[in-house]
Amino acid sequence: MPGKKRRLALLAEARFTPFDAKTAVGMLRYRPDQVAAVIDSTRAGTTAFECVGVGGAIPVVADVGAAAGCGADSLAIGIAPQGGGLPESWRKTVRQAIERGWDVLSGLHVFLADDRELAAAAARSGATLLDLRRPPAARTVAAARATRLDALVVLTVGSDCNVGKMTAALELTQALAGLGARAAFVATGQTGILIDGGGVAVDAVVSDFAAGAIENEVLAAGRDADVVVVEGQGALHHPGYSGVTLSLLAGSCPRALVLCHAAGRDRIRTADGAPHEIPIPPLTELARAYESAAAWVQKAEVVGVALNTLGLEEAAARAACDAAGRELGVPSTDPVRFGAGPLAEAVLALRGRTHASPA
Amino acid sequence: MPGKKRRLALLAEARFTPFDAKTAVGMLRYRPDQVAAVIDSTRAGTTAFECVGVGGAIPVVADVGAAAGCGADSLAIGIAPQGGGLPESWRKTVRQAIERGWDVLSGLHVFLADDRELAAAAARSGATLLDLRRPPAARTVAAARATRLDALVVLTVGSDCNVGKMTAALELTQALAGLGARAAFVATGQTGILIDGGGVAVDAVVSDFAAGAIENEVLAAGRDADVVVVEGQGALHHPGYSGVTLSLLAGSCPRALVLCHAAGRDRIRTADGAPHEIPIPPLTELARAYESAAAWVQKAEVVGVALNTLGLEEAAARAACDAAGRELGVPSTDPVRFGAGPLAEAVLALRGRTHASPA
Repeated sequence: MPGKKRRLALLAEARFTPFDAKTAVGMLRYRPDQVAAVIDSTRAGTTAFECVGVGGAIPVVADVGAAAGCGADSLAIGIAPQGGGLPESWRKTVRQAIERGWDVLSGLHVFLADDRELAAAAARSGATLLDLRRPPAARTVAAARATRLDALVVLTVGSDCNVGKMTAALELTQALAGLGARAAFVATGQTGILIDGGGVAVDAVVSDFAAGAIENEVLAAGRDADVVVVEGQGALHHPGYSGVTLSLLAGSCPRALVLCHAAGRDRIRTADGAPHEIPIPPLTELARAYESAAAWVQKAEVVGVALNTLGLEEAAARAACDAAGRELGVPSTDPVRFGAGPLAEAVLALRGRTHASPA
Repeated sequence: MPGKKRRLALLAEARFTPFDAKTAVGMLRYRPDQVAAVIDSTRAGTTAFECVGVGGAIPVVADVGAAAGCGADSLAIGIAPQGGGLPESWRKTVRQAIERGWDVLSGLHVFLADDRELAAAAARSGATLLDLRRPPAARTVAAARATRLDALVVLTVGSDCNVGKMTAALELTQALAGLGARAAFVATGQTGILIDGGGVAVDAVVSDFAAGAIENEVLAAGRDADVVVVEGQGALHHPGYSGVTLSLLAGSCPRALVLCHAAGRDRIRTADGAPHEIPIPPLTELARAYESAAAWVQKAEVVGVALNTLGLEEAAARAACDAAGRELGVPSTDPVRFGAGPLAEAVLALRGRTHASPA
C-alpha cells in the first residue's frame, strides 16, 4: 500500500451516510486527494459533501464504470458490515473492479485474497487484493513491554463503538505536531490503516495475540516519537467488543486516556434484536472504569474528553463540551468541530509532569 | 472427536511436570482410561504418578514406538508452548505417529491440518489431524444474549494463568451433579476440549468474535441445564491474556464467579524477560475487579474461592483455604484436595435466591 499513489473509488452502496459509511467518511475527511468517486447507486448524481458533510465536490456515482470516468484506478470498500463478510450484492462490483485491473483494498474480516473466485480473477487481470485486516504473521503474547517506552502513550477510549475514537486520535496527533511534539499515530482498525498506510487491525487478530500485536506496533512507533497516539476500538461496556478494547489497553500501556463519547447517546449499540439493553453510564463512571482497567497493568489517567457533537447546533455543541469538561474536571472538545488543541495541551502537560528532569 | 474411544499417547517431551504439562495432567486426572502412555524421553521408565501425582501406573516412555507397545492408537500433544507453534523437535514425533496411521489431537495455535508436510503424511496413512483450537466457522458478535438464560451461569476467574480455573470448573460441575443439579460444563481451552469432547478455544478466535463464540456455547449448554459452569481463561491483570478473559466474561454473562488462585503466588507470570513485574493484588481487590468488569454487562458476585494448594502440606493448605474464605467472606476450598462441595452449595444457594418463585 505505501508508496503507491492511488485514485480510489469508495464502495458505499446504499449506505453512504455519516454513520453507516465510517471508512468512506474517514478517507474523505483525511485523504480526499486520494478519492476519485464514491459508489452508491441510490445517491448517484449527488456529491460527497451533500451526503456526509465532507469530501466537497467528489462525485457520487452508480457503478465502477462511472467511477472510472472520474479517474478512479482502485476500489476501496468503504463500509464495514457487522460480522465482516462480503455481501453478495457487493461481489459483482468487486469483480468488475478486478476485471478492469484495479487493485481492491478491503477491511472485511473475510479476506478477498482467500476468495477463490476473486483471487482467480485478480490473477487474470493483474490486480492486487489488499486485505487491510490481515493479521501480522508474528504471534506475540504481550508482556507489558510498552511500559518501558520513554514516549508517552495516549489511547482513545469510548462509551461505545462508532463515537469518534479514530477521529479523535488523528486530530490529536495533528494538534500535537502543530505544537512541535514528535507525535506518532498507531492505526488499529481498517479505516485507520487505510488512511495511515500502516498499523494492525486488532479486532482481526486471534485473541491470544491481540495485545501482543498492539505492543509491537506501539514499541515500533515509540522509537522516534515523544508521544504515541493509539486509535481505540470498541468499549469496555460493549458485550461484543470489550475484549478487543482491553487487549488494546493492556498491549499499549497508555499513561493518558482520551475519553470519547457521542453527545446524547445513552445506550450501547449491540446487534439487532439483542435482548439486553446496556445503558451508557455517566462519564465519571466511564472514566473510572477505564482508569481501573488500565491500572491492572499500569496506572493511566483520563486527560480529556472528545465529544462527537454531530447533529447538534453550534451553541448546544459548545454547551455539551463544557458540561462534559466540568463533569470530569479535564479539557473537553469536539476535535472535528472545535479542534483538538485542548487535548494536545493536556497530553503535553502530563508528559511534562512525568518527564520532569530530576533536580 | 466424540464417539470414538481412543487410547492416547500424550506427548510431554522434556516437560512432564505438574506445571509444564497442563494438558497431559488434565487428561490424566479426568480421563485416565483414555491414556495408554506418556512420551517424555527424559523421564522414560517412570510412571505418571511419579512425575505429576496423577495417572497412577500409566507408563512414561521414550517414543511413539514404545507408546504403541503400551496399546496407544492416537497421539495427543500434552504441552502448550507459549506462542502456540509446533517446536521442530516435536515434529518428528508427530510425523512418526501419523505414519503409523494414528490420529493426532493438537491444541496448538498453529493447525496441524494446515501444515503441508503433515497433512500429506496423514493423507497417505489415513490418519486424521484434529486441531482442538480450530475456531467455529460462525462469526458472531456477542450481544449479551446469555443474560436471558434461565440457567445460572458460573464462570471461574483467576489471579493469573495456570492457577486451576479449568480444574475448579470441572470439579464444580461434578459436585453440582452430585447434589442433583443438572450441571453443564463449557470447555473454553484446548485441555478442557480434549477432556470434554466439545467446547471452543476462545483464545484462538479472532478477537471481534471471541465473546460471540462463547455466547453461542453457553446458550447451547443452557438449554437443558440448571447451572452452566464455564471454564475461565487468563486473568484481568495479565497483559497478554486479559482481552480473552474479558471476552469470556462478556460472552457468558455469569451471575456467579469462582475466584481461583495458586496459594503463595504473588506475581503474574508473563513471558520470559518481561520488564514489568505485575504483582497479584489481594483477593478482595481481585474480587472487586472481576465484579466490576462483569457489571459492565450484568452484575455478578464472587460466590467462592478455589485455591490451588499444590506443594503445601495438608495443615498449611487447610489454613490457606480458611484464610482466603475469611478474607472474602465466602466458602473457600482446594477443589482437588478437599472437594468442590462448598462451591457447589454456594452456587445452588445463589440459584435459589435468584430463582425464588414469587409469592
